[in-house]
Amino acid sequence: MMIMRSNKFRIVIVVADGLGDRAVPELNGKTPLEVASKDNIDWLTSRGVTGLWDPIAPGVRPGSDTAHLALFGIDPTENYPGRGPFEAIGAGAELEPGDVALRGNFATVDKEFRVIDRRAGRYLPENKDLVKYLNENVGEIDGIKVRFYAATEHRVAVVLKGRDLSPRISDTDPHVTGVKVLYSKPLDNSYEARKTAEVINKLTKIVHDLLKEHELNKKRVERGLPPANIILLRGAGQMVKYPTFKERKFVIIDKALAISATAMIKGVCKLLGMEVVTPNGATGGVDTDVMAKAKTLIEYYNKDYDFIYMHVKGTDAASHDGRTDLKIRLIERIDLAMRYILDHIGLDNTVVIFTGDHTTPITVRDHTGDPVPVTIYAPNILPDDVKIFSERSARKGGLGRIRREDLFNTLLDLANRREKFGA
Amino acid sequence: MMIMRSNKFRIVIVVADGLGDRAVPELNGKTPLEVASKDNIDWLTSRGVTGLWDPIAPGVRPGSDTAHLALFGIDPTENYPGRGPFEAIGAGAELEPGDVALRGNFATVDKEFRVIDRRAGRYLPENKDLVKYLNENVGEIDGIKVRFYAATEHRVAVVLKGRDLSPRISDTDPHVTGVKVLYSKPLDNSYEARKTAEVINKLTKIVHDLLKEHELNKKRVERGLPPANIILLRGAGQMVKYPTFKERKFVIIDKALAISATAMIKGVCKLLGMEVVTPNGATGGVDTDVMAKAKTLIEYYNKDYDFIYMHVKGTDAASHDGRTDLKIRLIERIDLAMRYILDHIGLDNTVVIFTGDHTTPITVRDHTGDPVPVTIYAPNILPDDVKIFSERSARKGGLGRIRREDLFNTLLDLANRREKFGA
Repeated sequence: MMIMRSNKFRIVIVVADGLGDRAVPELNGKTPLEVASKDNIDWLTSRGVTGLWDPIAPGVRPGSDTAHLALFGIDPTENYPGRGPFEAIGAGAELEPGDVALRGNFATVDKEFRVIDRRAGRYLPENKDLVKYLNENVGEIDGIKVRFYAATEHRVAVVLKGRDLSPRISDTDPHVTGVKVLYSKPLDNSYEARKTAEVINKLTKIVHDLLKEHELNKKRVERGLPPANIILLRGAGQMVKYPTFKERKFVIIDKALAISATAMIKGVCKLLGMEVVTPNGATGGVDTDVMAKAKTLIEYYNKDYDFIYMHVKGTDAASHDGRTDLKIRLIERIDLAMRYILDHIGLDNTVVIFTGDHTTPITVRDHTGDPVPVTIYAPNILPDDVKIFSERSARKGGLGRIRREDLFNTLLDLANRREKFGA
Repeated sequence: MMIMRSNKFRIVIVVADGLGDRAVPELNGKTPLEVASKDNIDWLTSRGVTGLWDPIAPGVRPGSDTAHLALFGIDPTENYPGRGPFEAIGAGAELEPGDVALRGNFATVDKEFRVIDRRAGRYLPENKDLVKYLNENVGEIDGIKVRFYAATEHRVAVVLKGRDLSPRISDTDPHVTGVKVLYSKPLDNSYEARKTAEVINKLTKIVHDLLKEHELNKKRVERGLPPANIILLRGAGQMVKYPTFKERKFVIIDKALAISATAMIKGVCKLLGMEVVTPNGATGGVDTDVMAKAKTLIEYYNKDYDFIYMHVKGTDAASHDGRTDLKIRLIERIDLAMRYILDHIGLDNTVVIFTGDHTTPITVRDHTGDPVPVTIYAPNILPDDVKIFSERSARKGGLGRIRREDLFNTLLDLANRREKFGA
């Protein structure tokens, strides 16, 4: 026990979002990871243990939220509040337990509330301005605070804060055109569900009244575009309380930091009790300044942080866009940042891991449920024979194929930061 | 999202029942799969990813029912209604949720209902005729429809259909000879359990009255054989509702087909919402016309089916009979059918898998809990180094060792037919 406590190592996690891939035809069946020049990641691989990690389970396609919960040791198949709250977090909301959040579309209805276009044309550059206008004019409904958050294209998130809320309400989005917007109905007999449905129905009316006369919508109509004159809501979910690292039973982590420029990731990290920083130049895109993140990592490493997570989103963005070249180039830039990190940490007292949060194959352009290659270095680890880091070589790694919270527990274990289970 | 949906691939699954094996002494320690000539299965293997699948979990011996539920992504350790309903399905019953089914033995009792032989001699060629007679003469008891289904040897299944049934009742089978047939008792205080036990007790009396005077039993006694003058019942189970592919949350499958000649498999596939066909010449035995199944597969592939399951039972039958030669020969015939399939599908838009539902080693002559070798081909998959399909080579495969619904989820994922979990 004494020795355990004195030998606690630091933990450094570097994640390239959507890293893993499938065979890319334009690379003659190889993957970006197999083609990229990445001597430093391979150096780490040759000194550590490599394997495959299924963020949820084999074949299960994770979202960024569920993948990151699993990465940090929380089983997302238990207690997951649905996409509503996490979409809101991804759009910049800060949620507390009890808040109810819904996913929404700016849409077009006629005077009888009949849906003409469920996405108001989909391309909606006015999104942010309309959201700002709604936030300035809606405020509270029946004592419930209402906040809107702009997301991509026509998408928006709506967050309700207040007492006695329930996620047990039906959608107002009819999911088809030509019919009227639905009234939200309580899905159980609770006071909370009835109240929440009523707030949503009032909200829908208020939003329509505010939007239908809005200047930007008048201009859209003049240009022959469908006005964004309502928000269709779906997928209500109620935020749950996640335990922070400090609150978790077997976890021995005092100060944890996340470095990310992506709202969803920053939000999840905050929920779990991590401090979050976004260095200058970190954009969340393929143009992000990876070296700025690495320098921030070392800056905090030299303070007394014992857990540092560095997230690079661009590899996922490149994959969603089908840009093989950009994915390769970003992996190469991450490799240089990795060199800076490896040069500035103590390899005798740090556990280092490089992986993705999920796979986003270039050929699919979306998250898949393929396993993610992962390499782990730790002081006194027994290296395996894998010297090159790739989807294929990882299959032969000494770590084998592990899933969900196995990876986090392995890191804690190698860093001597997990309490014993049993006597 | 758009691209995901347009890139959905077809899924073709070929299962050789009881495929995997252990070292067979007469093959100098090799397995039928290692000895059989199977160039086409190996061709598929060399282009895909191979590994081991545990239908339930390592070492857990599956039935045909639990193995197939797992193969199709249903966790059979949750919500399994017991063997009664599935034995009935295997004997040809079509069950609906709520039906209660029991396993039964034709047995021999004396005039005081004392059990003389729990299996009425075990060899009972009169089984089907007696079952037919009972079905013609029992009908309903207290408003509950009663149906009998002949199974192998002395075995029979009994199905109760009607309102207010419960599986919480005790067996009438005392499981030993020399004692009286037991009264079924309710195992809880519910009205349903009391009513169901009463129906079972009346049924036992009626069955005895009908059988004791039956001509076939008189003939058995004349020949010195024990009469089948009662049915001993055990293992009551109530059929549950399984979600069909269309009802399942993350599954994107519109039209699914199963090709099988085996009642149990056909029943399970129907429960999960698949259409079922049995081609001419498909017998469920070692003499089955595998090529007829392959041709049926291609016929439906050329219609708009996006999921086709082809089941060959004979490999299991050969294993139960300890017939190494027949198992090898059938694997070779499956290999030729596989060639026909591979020649007629589009490899650029189809996921193909070859595996067993469980292992049935020749030396054991029954299902074992060994992992099953599995090979998966998919467009853009990253092939591993395994070129030959066998129990041993599969251990080195890139798929690693997966279990239960992992395999189904992996197929859906590779075919881009699984919804994302998370935001």
